[in-house]
Amino acid sequence: MPRILIEEQGHKIEVPILLTAVSGKIRVKNRSIVNEYGTPVAVRRDGFALSNYVEWQIGYDVVKKEVEKLAESSLPDTEFIGANGKTKALYELSEYIWYFYKWGIIEKRDLEEVVNYLNSIPDNNLIDNNSELQIDRSHPMAKSINGFDFEYTQVKYPLLMHKFHGYEIVTEIKITEKQYAVGTQPMLYLCFPITELKTQNNLIGRTANAKEVANFEITENNISVFLEMLKMFGILSNGHKHDVLQIINTILL
Amino acid sequence: MPRILIEEQGHKIEVPILLTAVSGKIRVKNRSIVNEYGTPVAVRRDGFALSNYVEWQIGYDVVKKEVEKLAESSLPDTEFIGANGKTKALYELSEYIWYFYKWGIIEKRDLEEVVNYLNSIPDNNLIDNNSELQIDRSHPMAKSINGFDFEYTQVKYPLLMHKFHGYEIVTEIKITEKQYAVGTQPMLYLCFPITELKTQNNLIGRTANAKEVANFEITENNISVFLEMLKMFGILSNGHKHDVLQIINTILL
Repeated sequence: MPRILIEEQGHKIEVPILLTAVSGKIRVKNRSIVNEYGTPVAVRRDGFALSNYVEWQIGYDVVKKEVEKLAESSLPDTEFIGANGKTKALYELSEYIWYFYKWGIIEKRDLEEVVNYLNSIPDNNLIDNNSELQIDRSHPMAKSINGFDFEYTQVKYPLLMHKFHGYEIVTEIKITEKQYAVGTQPMLYLCFPITELKTQNNLIGRTANAKEVANFEITENNISVFLEMLKMFGILSNGHKHDVLQIINTILL
Repeated sequence: MPRILIEEQGHKIEVPILLTAVSGKIRVKNRSIVNEYGTPVAVRRDGFALSNYVEWQIGYDVVKKEVEKLAESSLPDTEFIGANGKTKALYELSEYIWYFYKWGIIEKRDLEEVVNYLNSIPDNNLIDNNSELQIDRSHPMAKSINGFDFEYTQVKYPLLMHKFHGYEIVTEIKITEKQYAVGTQPMLYLCFPITELKTQNNLIGRTANAKEVANFEITENNISVFLEMLKMFGILSNGHKHDVLQIINTILL
């Protein structure tokens, strides 16, 4: 991803969003009216529609050893130790909050409030420990399809959606299997309509240019959403809680 | 993946399986007794257990333009046009069947039977058109978690499992969203216990060596399973049906 643009005077951060990415953390998707379900859009072929939105698996850290990714952070010298023991720098979500704290728009007590909130949440209330948010598998049933005998089950993944009132921004928490252990792994996505993007030419009704980039603006009008998101990250799991508390420590330094 | 070893005399194909792959089409997984659910195993760290199995997203073709992958096929000069209009060569599943047909172990009528079977399946009986095998999403419910208001839904993915009687081989068909369109996309996985692998040293109870490879043997004793799998591929979708029919044409040439 290209680096963010920081307007110190205007207290504004412009995040470049690559609209044509077919893999990676940011995708343009389409929300069907029928079931609110998002499917990826081939924007170079099919163009943009009003029902399109950006799905962004936003991060909050970068491992310092990952030099290439570290170069994407505007704060490569910041430092904290992640729950996984790795030395990390602020990145994306934590980076934005760092600037708005420095600019005095986010105040010390806002951050302390998040710390107090997270410290008040018992471990077994964290999302990955929540017994109502586990991956569920239905009992197998015999099913014959075109002469083949199958056992049929449904694997059920919880999905949580939170709307930030007054904003066109939504977060989705998808709960999937952990990669190398038994248990679940919640993943947080930030979603907003493509109409929120700043572009030179209106997107709707046209196809994307090669490697087209549009900007998402973070200002004092919407930074509170990002602070709420950091708070929400902190309730995903013990590891996330540790990371978020360390990040706030680092910002307050 | 390293290339397969073809023993023309012994009518045997050895497929090298990279046990330590953490991504890609082959993974070592562990099946929990509690819910039959497979989770990936860190074989370098945690070692192998009797409950481990190989999950292999087996393919049947390679696009000829993909030179690097084409080099993994032992039949790069074979040719057919896939449902997506691309020129392809036989690979993996279709490659194995090509040899066993050439060796006279699979007979012409075996392949013709698959053709007749597939031609007898109406389009709307194909798995991706099956109304009972769609991705389901429960109606959203309000749910408050640690003070955040969420809408909670369950996204339900169908999973089909077929056991080949008399073999330790299972196929799983996972149904997921299509990447660039509305609709479902069935994916076929071949699973077998790690005890089916040929290794120099017994796997159970030890960790994997760096880049350790073990062999899976295809012989006249289990090739019928692979033919059944080709048949099963043909009922996944119209595109798969087209491909399988073209593959059989190519083998019979």
